[in-house]
Amino acid sequence: MSRIFNFSAGPSMLPESVLEKAASEMLNYKDSGMSVMEMSHRSKVYDKIIKETEQKLRDVMSIPDNYKVLFLQGGATLQFSMIPMNLMVKNGKADYIVSGSFSGNAYKEAQKYGEVNLAGTSKEDNFSHIPTQEELTLTEDADYLHICENNTIFGTTYNYLPETGGVPIVSDMSSCILSKPVDVSKYGMIYAGAQKNMGPAGLTVVIIREDLIGEPQDKTPVMLRYDIMAKNDSMYNTPPTYAIYILGLVLDWVESMGGVEGMLEHNEKKAAILYDYLDSSKLFKTNVVKENRSIMNVTFYTGNEELDAKFVKETAAKGFSNLKGHRSVGGMRASIYNAMPIEGVQALVDFMREFEKENA
Amino acid sequence: MSRIFNFSAGPSMLPESVLEKAASEMLNYKDSGMSVMEMSHRSKVYDKIIKETEQKLRDVMSIPDNYKVLFLQGGATLQFSMIPMNLMVKNGKADYIVSGSFSGNAYKEAQKYGEVNLAGTSKEDNFSHIPTQEELTLTEDADYLHICENNTIFGTTYNYLPETGGVPIVSDMSSCILSKPVDVSKYGMIYAGAQKNMGPAGLTVVIIREDLIGEPQDKTPVMLRYDIMAKNDSMYNTPPTYAIYILGLVLDWVESMGGVEGMLEHNEKKAAILYDYLDSSKLFKTNVVKENRSIMNVTFYTGNEELDAKFVKETAAKGFSNLKGHRSVGGMRASIYNAMPIEGVQALVDFMREFEKENA
Repeated sequence: MSRIFNFSAGPSMLPESVLEKAASEMLNYKDSGMSVMEMSHRSKVYDKIIKETEQKLRDVMSIPDNYKVLFLQGGATLQFSMIPMNLMVKNGKADYIVSGSFSGNAYKEAQKYGEVNLAGTSKEDNFSHIPTQEELTLTEDADYLHICENNTIFGTTYNYLPETGGVPIVSDMSSCILSKPVDVSKYGMIYAGAQKNMGPAGLTVVIIREDLIGEPQDKTPVMLRYDIMAKNDSMYNTPPTYAIYILGLVLDWVESMGGVEGMLEHNEKKAAILYDYLDSSKLFKTNVVKENRSIMNVTFYTGNEELDAKFVKETAAKGFSNLKGHRSVGGMRASIYNAMPIEGVQALVDFMREFEKENA
Repeated sequence: MSRIFNFSAGPSMLPESVLEKAASEMLNYKDSGMSVMEMSHRSKVYDKIIKETEQKLRDVMSIPDNYKVLFLQGGATLQFSMIPMNLMVKNGKADYIVSGSFSGNAYKEAQKYGEVNLAGTSKEDNFSHIPTQEELTLTEDADYLHICENNTIFGTTYNYLPETGGVPIVSDMSSCILSKPVDVSKYGMIYAGAQKNMGPAGLTVVIIREDLIGEPQDKTPVMLRYDIMAKNDSMYNTPPTYAIYILGLVLDWVESMGGVEGMLEHNEKKAAILYDYLDSSKLFKTNVVKENRSIMNVTFYTGNEELDAKFVKETAAKGFSNLKGHRSVGGMRASIYNAMPIEGVQALVDFMREFEKENA
């Protein structure tokens, strides 16, 4: 079998050119005589890789100078703890919007470390929309407001940024980072597990406004302190060196695609192919409200569990992998991150039409 | 330049056959149509990789059934926090032997979480030996005794396992795991950052006796709980999937070399070439006592800082990289982990002889 269209929610597809480059440099990176995996993180050759990767990310995302970029480990889930431990230190309280599974986990974890207010949730309609500004109850003196900008499991995304009256917004962008232009200056902190749009699992990127970095709560493990990680340029100990290198290659690819503006155009095209078909189909439907439809994760279902299972089975046989919806939701989900080509989405929709005809 | 002899203390050399295999499978792993980096960690194809990797580690290290193997992130440094948070829960006290830099960091970090006793140290002779059993002051009801089995910076290693009267030993084996046979049943827990003898940075392996896994201290972050990680087979969230795959390839290589018995033979041969020369040289010397000489990290110096610098410069030009000693110690250090071939050590010693002749 040749390379297939992989609709996995993460880890997920990487650009073929990135994998080709990585394979070609595996035994000898740029005449260094070694693999990037084998390099001392304190060597000159690796120092150049990590510094250039940071600079590329700053360029691609237009990150202002008063923000630090950190390369960490432990996934978004470790950030669920690090955020309150480091940021819930002024007034000891924070607001959380629960718009899906991961934001729910973040909300629960934060309760270990302070007073946490549920600022809004769409649990009552099974997370098929994002709470609107009018639905929010915000705390004036919260240390921050936490949101999950794109909900991987439910296929929803914010179409606005909450007005908080100066309270910094901390956003989990794991499943939408690099998919569109973002005004970083409107956030206190942005973070993302790399394994959807950035690179291999095991790398977490944190972009944080410098003035928010300070003394954390007592007993915060040294590796979980933003101040220590910032002071040491993510090198307090050995960072996930190879994953950072791959991120650099992915950023080169994003740039070659026209940066985040190019990615948005590419992603909107792909999403439109799927949503236009879903809106016209008599068999497949989505229950996400129009204004919150994600262009990264598209959830849909037939309403008949057996038919859903048949569809998933047939797509797998055709070389479309991972189309089964998350176990907590059922149905189907097509994750169409940056690296998914238009041809993949087009081929999927072609098959959906065929399936609809045969199962009418 | 072709591939060079890389004496880095970590990340460090990997077997060439491992890199070749990884490069060849980069775009399409075993006809799956995707790279291991792109696989959902919950997919069948990846599940096989992680399960087989664990089984290979169990086989190679003869890990008893009552020990859990965990694949974590954050390096040994995150373990410095996780160990007290999870294990200092019975009597709230622990013993630490400080035999170098990293064990010193572990000792310091543990003090955040309980009553920590300095059971022994060789700080007074700049860590040139490992504290002997007679030099230890152990606490009868300590929850554990922490040791660092091989000291990367100072080039020392334990030649005995402390007699603790039943107190579990927790050992940092980052720079010696897989280098020799180890009786796992004599330990409560063994842990290692992968980037020296196991694979890429960003993976930490923990081998822990099941009865030691329990409710951790209050406010322990969810990702830092051994009980949660054990219950979820290291899949509470996305593990560092690619690094685990590389570990599997490294374990295949270890097996092909005759397992850990074969590795010990191979490593002792390499170390003997270096130490025999050091003992006979009039220019180069080591200050590590004979009974604690590491077969992984060999430290040496001329006694003349300028000459040391000249040596490091000339070796780099010859294609021997990373021979400079750690900044806290000075001099030179040759890290000769599992993947360093005998030819590398032989070529280094040949050059040292030449250098000695020219600088007599």
